[in-house]
Amino acid sequence: MNNLFADRMNNVHKSFIREILKVTENPEIISFAGGLPNPDSFPVKEVQEAVTNVLTSNGEEILQYSTTEGYQPLREYIASRYKKNGLKVHPDQVLITNGSQQGIDLTGKIFLNKDDNVLVESPTYLAAIQSFGLMEARFKSVPLLEDGADLDAVKRSLDENRIKLFYSVTNFQNPTGITYSQKKREMLADILKDRDTIFVEDNPYGEIRFLGEDIPPVKKYLDSGVLFGSFSKIVSPGMRLGWIVAPDEVMEKLVTAKQASDLHSNYFTQRVVYQYLTDNDVDKHIEKIKAMYRDQRNLMVEMIEEYFPEDVKITRPEGGMFLWVTLPEDLSSLKLFDLAIKENVAFVPGKAFYTDDMGDNTLRLNFSNSSADKIEEGIKRLGSVIGSLMNQKRHK
Amino acid sequence: MNNLFADRMNNVHKSFIREILKVTENPEIISFAGGLPNPDSFPVKEVQEAVTNVLTSNGEEILQYSTTEGYQPLREYIASRYKKNGLKVHPDQVLITNGSQQGIDLTGKIFLNKDDNVLVESPTYLAAIQSFGLMEARFKSVPLLEDGADLDAVKRSLDENRIKLFYSVTNFQNPTGITYSQKKREMLADILKDRDTIFVEDNPYGEIRFLGEDIPPVKKYLDSGVLFGSFSKIVSPGMRLGWIVAPDEVMEKLVTAKQASDLHSNYFTQRVVYQYLTDNDVDKHIEKIKAMYRDQRNLMVEMIEEYFPEDVKITRPEGGMFLWVTLPEDLSSLKLFDLAIKENVAFVPGKAFYTDDMGDNTLRLNFSNSSADKIEEGIKRLGSVIGSLMNQKRHK
Repeated sequence: MNNLFADRMNNVHKSFIREILKVTENPEIISFAGGLPNPDSFPVKEVQEAVTNVLTSNGEEILQYSTTEGYQPLREYIASRYKKNGLKVHPDQVLITNGSQQGIDLTGKIFLNKDDNVLVESPTYLAAIQSFGLMEARFKSVPLLEDGADLDAVKRSLDENRIKLFYSVTNFQNPTGITYSQKKREMLADILKDRDTIFVEDNPYGEIRFLGEDIPPVKKYLDSGVLFGSFSKIVSPGMRLGWIVAPDEVMEKLVTAKQASDLHSNYFTQRVVYQYLTDNDVDKHIEKIKAMYRDQRNLMVEMIEEYFPEDVKITRPEGGMFLWVTLPEDLSSLKLFDLAIKENVAFVPGKAFYTDDMGDNTLRLNFSNSSADKIEEGIKRLGSVIGSLMNQKRHK
Repeated sequence: MNNLFADRMNNVHKSFIREILKVTENPEIISFAGGLPNPDSFPVKEVQEAVTNVLTSNGEEILQYSTTEGYQPLREYIASRYKKNGLKVHPDQVLITNGSQQGIDLTGKIFLNKDDNVLVESPTYLAAIQSFGLMEARFKSVPLLEDGADLDAVKRSLDENRIKLFYSVTNFQNPTGITYSQKKREMLADILKDRDTIFVEDNPYGEIRFLGEDIPPVKKYLDSGVLFGSFSKIVSPGMRLGWIVAPDEVMEKLVTAKQASDLHSNYFTQRVVYQYLTDNDVDKHIEKIKAMYRDQRNLMVEMIEEYFPEDVKITRPEGGMFLWVTLPEDLSSLKLFDLAIKENVAFVPGKAFYTDDMGDNTLRLNFSNSSADKIEEGIKRLGSVIGSLMNQKRHK
């Protein structure tokens, strides 16, 4: 049967992370490998109230089929929430999706022919590599600096290649935690303005800024941009509810592709989430999440400063759920992983996030899903494993 | 920007049905155009109880991310429900999807290269044409007879073309209401047995048989088959919950494609539906739906027999939600549609369901979503409009 599968399946393999997560199911293991929100932040009681509310008032309607675009009041809510970023969004430019992951799928479907070039940050979000890979795209990459992509490299890549689409996670990137500066956003918009390249801005973590000031999305400076958002990090990831903001002509194609993909997103959940959003003080809820993650991030950074060898470098994210570790160049995080698992501590080796086979000396740590105890103990163990790996190297 | 869209978008247009449904939003119109279940059949109270139950006992877990394959007890439930069809399904061969529509999307993704041939019934499910079209498939078609596809034509098409995939709706097909006979299922399995053609069996209506005896899916006789199912017609379509049953090696690719598409299906809803299924007598609930649809179907057939001109032919479905009307060959259902709308009655012209530009004299009627009053009045009006169209023809 193997000869029957489509060529595109050769470009995509089961996620390495998924395989790692299986290893870490052992409850003995302190895992910084996953990408899970802190479940203590989930508004269980409020969701329950929202369900009761919508089922009691409109039960039969909310269990029925609905429109491909999504529940209109929810689209309006999303559109108007962008006002605080100075972004003008019309509700008709919002498509409800199954998490922002489906944004990647639909965008790939409507824009990418086989062998089209997609520009990504190096490193980039793993499931974007998988999803664009399914559309048989080729990847070009640009280095990610402390304040966003290397814009000279972006310009060079756009000049040298026909780039159909530039995929970027501008806030608290997965995997690095890096955020584009205000200046870089404006410069990037300027670079992209008159080019035939679609800018796809994935922003699932944007609301979770626990340090510094909010910065508007690049789309504010670039009308043609396609922007993704998600309720996964502010309400519930299990509900798989996100959205795409796109110009009218793109929206039309997205709706067609969405319809062919799954008709529409879960309407029951759309109604529940909308009810939750209108009945509760969402900003207060988000403040609670931010406070949690700020503490978790601060503790992890503090422990790393205490327990990691000096020449190990880390990012210091101002939001989101991840930080990024760069080991000395001659160390392999894959080797480190094997040693760490023996000490019952896990992370994701960085290589998986690169399209260009780089990053063997990098790794991703998640701080949002571990208690203070586990962060302390896990980082201590990890520091000692890194130390022994460095010693091994030195003695060879 | 138009030059930036992928070639595949040229193969897919916004659903004609969707445009029709907009016309029929006018509450004055009696619409047989949609494909909606009867909302009176939705278990609103029971869903409410299931939500309370799962949120109270496991709130934080059910709002979290989950596995791509789906909630294991739900997969087990689905697998074991096939026993009544004499079908042995292992839970690991069940992938939870967003309705059976996503089954089509994922199957297209893993099997279809550009220009691969897909065999379909003529007519076939519109959103399958759209979804396989997105994968740039070419369509071959075989006539649909009263007891299923014309198997001689199937054999001929398989001999003459390299057919990658045969897509079939074996029970109460959308749009025709036609069901494959027991004999045809076995013969079809025999024809396909040693060929390099994937048989994809879409079965969203299978549980809603209100006349005659259940017949096992073709997959019972053909291990290599891929089978879709759905909770849309037995619990709630708005929840977008369906599944794929597939052999292990196919399942592995499907999981990879699913992960790149949206990580996993709504976990909250999976838990709610599973709770609903275990706490309630589902078979009794399905009996209630069947009784409703049987009455609606019988009334529609009766009214058609009374009010439609004699040389109009219809199918007499034993389940599902649709019946199919064939006008005399020189009549156009598109013209009929314009006249019918003026009389405030709507249906779907049949042409949309053909890949080969046939069927201008056919149309689809939905009986599950109209009250007895509306069925009586709507069919009466439609009969009279058909009569006047025939008279116009005769006098030209």
